[in-house]
Amino acid sequence: MATFTVGVDMGGTNLRVAGFSSAWERLAAVSVPTRVADGPRAVLGDMAAAIRQVIDSCGPAELEGIGIGSPGPIELPEGRLLEPPNLPGFHALALRAELESLLDVPVPIVVESDANAAALAEAHAGAGEQHGADSLCMLTLGTGVGNGIIFDGRIWHGERGMAGEAGHIAVWPDGIECPCGNRGCLELFASATGIVRMARETAYEGRSPRTRDLIERGAPVTAQDVTRFAEEGDEGALVVYDTVGRALGISLAGLVNTLNVPLYVIGGGAAAAWHLFSPALFRELESRSYVYRLTAPRDKGKFTPGRTNVLPAMLGSGSGLLGAAMVPRFQR
Amino acid sequence: MATFTVGVDMGGTNLRVAGFSSAWERLAAVSVPTRVADGPRAVLGDMAAAIRQVIDSCGPAELEGIGIGSPGPIELPEGRLLEPPNLPGFHALALRAELESLLDVPVPIVVESDANAAALAEAHAGAGEQHGADSLCMLTLGTGVGNGIIFDGRIWHGERGMAGEAGHIAVWPDGIECPCGNRGCLELFASATGIVRMARETAYEGRSPRTRDLIERGAPVTAQDVTRFAEEGDEGALVVYDTVGRALGISLAGLVNTLNVPLYVIGGGAAAAWHLFSPALFRELESRSYVYRLTAPRDKGKFTPGRTNVLPAMLGSGSGLLGAAMVPRFQR
Repeated sequence: MATFTVGVDMGGTNLRVAGFSSAWERLAAVSVPTRVADGPRAVLGDMAAAIRQVIDSCGPAELEGIGIGSPGPIELPEGRLLEPPNLPGFHALALRAELESLLDVPVPIVVESDANAAALAEAHAGAGEQHGADSLCMLTLGTGVGNGIIFDGRIWHGERGMAGEAGHIAVWPDGIECPCGNRGCLELFASATGIVRMARETAYEGRSPRTRDLIERGAPVTAQDVTRFAEEGDEGALVVYDTVGRALGISLAGLVNTLNVPLYVIGGGAAAAWHLFSPALFRELESRSYVYRLTAPRDKGKFTPGRTNVLPAMLGSGSGLLGAAMVPRFQR
Repeated sequence: MATFTVGVDMGGTNLRVAGFSSAWERLAAVSVPTRVADGPRAVLGDMAAAIRQVIDSCGPAELEGIGIGSPGPIELPEGRLLEPPNLPGFHALALRAELESLLDVPVPIVVESDANAAALAEAHAGAGEQHGADSLCMLTLGTGVGNGIIFDGRIWHGERGMAGEAGHIAVWPDGIECPCGNRGCLELFASATGIVRMARETAYEGRSPRTRDLIERGAPVTAQDVTRFAEEGDEGALVVYDTVGRALGISLAGLVNTLNVPLYVIGGGAAAAWHLFSPALFRELESRSYVYRLTAPRDKGKFTPGRTNVLPAMLGSGSGLLGAAMVPRFQR
């Protein structure tokens, strides 16, 4: 009989649930707001209801497993949330155990960090699959910067599920403070949040007339605005994306020297500005990593087997959801 | 019949060759100077002669394989040296192929970076073996800073054998230039060479009267001198080891956030000053890595299963040689 798996993308804003065939075609999907303010009970109830609805829609195919992509860090194998910054009140929630008792289904329920899930999707249905790269390291530029590491087609979890937290590696160790306790973390310079903060700073310094216009009109500033301003030649916005690229390049130099995998993938919403930040990224990476210099492809835009390739993600914003559905299949 | 493997530690100063039993007892050993100035041919000839001598001494046990620990980086699986900084003139030397044709033995000859070999030895006969940790990350503080990563008992090579080059990750990206092209590399602050450089700097600044004495007498300054001065309370020498610890802590924060293995081992000659640099190391690591804070053992001096342990290496300066002999056994 045909089988399917269910993926859940537990975001700070929306809960997205979908069923996928064994060939990763989307069969059914449900999206509901994440009622963070109502607390973990409400969110778990909504999640269980949405999962049941998707399971019903996917029948008569047979359910293989359920994967939950959650903001990290997560303690494994328990699937317990650890101080998720965008889900206040969810600390120490035993997500897997709670869902097991709510759903009572005879299949594995697996919890995974959303960034690891996105990397798994890129490995099996995105850039990794397309280019035949079994091992990759992905950075997801969203509200924060997520990181997932795939070795030989499987997520590298480390000892307690907390590998792949490169968003909180310092790129400028004497830089501004990060809520994580470190200073100058990659996340502060390469996330959508960081892009907006830096754009506001350039506006106050008088270098970004367009961002200043928005601020003076009382309008919100988004990373998409900053991208548009940079494309229109706004000096401050160009400086911001140069900083994004430098931070990513410094970070990738460290990851390349540590991991030496064939593929590094940059995904997430802010990766749409690849054309704006990638020149600075490659400049830093080339000057800072001799491993990269020894293994760089001749054409940086084209995957070359046996070399160190840095490319934008192929899957869009659905990679976390698809990857969550893949987790039960490619579990440990 | 009893079997043995031969290890070679190809240092910039000495070529050390030894045979080890399958229980890793040393059976025979030969050490000769590395005739770097006479070029690769001379060194290869000396190495082959020493290997033959060790094989003869270890008979009638059966030879299983030969492992060569060489300064990195090395391109694998070819075993080709890539611009080894302490072996000028050895660039692109196909070490494995050359030795295969010189020795003509019916067993595998495997080339491995010396830092990876040391990490393998710590995994199977040192701190990892003692504590039951299958995965570890080792930093070797010698002339440079070597790095080896062991996942599930095996060396993690990455795509082309160039994983584990954390000595050239920037800890202060706007810091002084490194010959590798990067700035502010860990190696500049945590190697014996870096320790001596920093001690000289503090002497010129008037903060290290004892180092100044040595310089004025025209005597060489060694890392061991700086250790002794720090133990005697010399301000400049204490500052140097505080910097060593800070650099290691920043670097480990990144490695812990990336790899999340249960054990990080600090080895090499300069690790003898553990008592001088470890306070700063743990201070930085705790403030900079939330993964570490969530997983630190209660007693930092004692290995605790399931936690993130940072400990000095258990094996001394012979770990590279022993590890080289282990390489044929634990190959890929």
